[in-house]
Amino acid sequence: MTISLYAASVPVFKQMLNSMNHVLTKAEEHAEAKNIDPSALLQARLFPDMFQLLRQVQIATDFARGVSARLAGAEVPKYEDKEQTFADLRELIAKTLTFIEGFAPAQIDGNEDRVIVTRPGTPKEKKFTGQSYLLSYGLPQFFFHVTTAYAILRHNGIEVGKRDYMGQY
Amino acid sequence: MTISLYAASVPVFKQMLNSMNHVLTKAEEHAEAKNIDPSALLQARLFPDMFQLLRQVQIATDFARGVSARLAGAEVPKYEDKEQTFADLRELIAKTLTFIEGFAPAQIDGNEDRVIVTRPGTPKEKKFTGQSYLLSYGLPQFFFHVTTAYAILRHNGIEVGKRDYMGQY
Repeated sequence: MTISLYAASVPVFKQMLNSMNHVLTKAEEHAEAKNIDPSALLQARLFPDMFQLLRQVQIATDFARGVSARLAGAEVPKYEDKEQTFADLRELIAKTLTFIEGFAPAQIDGNEDRVIVTRPGTPKEKKFTGQSYLLSYGLPQFFFHVTTAYAILRHNGIEVGKRDYMGQY
Repeated sequence: MTISLYAASVPVFKQMLNSMNHVLTKAEEHAEAKNIDPSALLQARLFPDMFQLLRQVQIATDFARGVSARLAGAEVPKYEDKEQTFADLRELIAKTLTFIEGFAPAQIDGNEDRVIVTRPGTPKEKKFTGQSYLLSYGLPQFFFHVTTAYAILRHNGIEVGKRDYMGQY
């Protein structure tokens, strides 16, 4: 027996997107309870040349959509990245969940050897197989942004813990 | 075709452990160049009740060893966690790499349905299959600690970027 490409992608994204949504909700409630301007959290960064919370969430969802779509050989949807509030981010996560839940396992399974080219036509062009794209690129990137979003909120005193990060498993 | 349990575990750990080693080396060089006490970085945290850099690295390597061993049905090695310096952490990563590279694909592949019980006999006991243990628990935990170690160093001004985090892929 082996594991399926679908099992290693869409359900992993779902688990972490749901937990990120939950962590963001706790952050919003914290801001409200403490009279904190929500943008103090949404625009928070760990260092001036790192992305702020809002952008980390956008990029995490972008990887969830992009990786799922590329594995399925489907078109990668273009989003406008115009979110500005916690409510916007929750809606973005909900839309992303709906998008990735639209893929049936059969659309992704079997595409382990599909050739996937990132940044085609640029000096950074890179060729992957479906499997290497997910395991050596997609998952590390996705987890980077989910964890960094969590780290920004922890650094700003939001009372969440590893259980909130992990979500339902 | 499908992907193998081995491909989704040991090589992923290897890639990220090597990149974490590289990021730690850059941090040590930075400390030396700027006359920073290395423990100012090793003991740095993003929030008082989060683990410091040194512990984040220990836990990341612990998940790499523990997940690989459990998937193979091998004994999980006990380490003493007595690292105190950057050199100690590099040695810990090297030992962890040697340990996980000791597993042949055939020792892990096929164990997707192996029953894995975490924290047995405690109220937090949880039963997994090999596949769910890796995808819904092991990888999210491992990436959490690798990314948080990176985030602590970025927050402290170490000049590393996404390319350093991603490593060789």
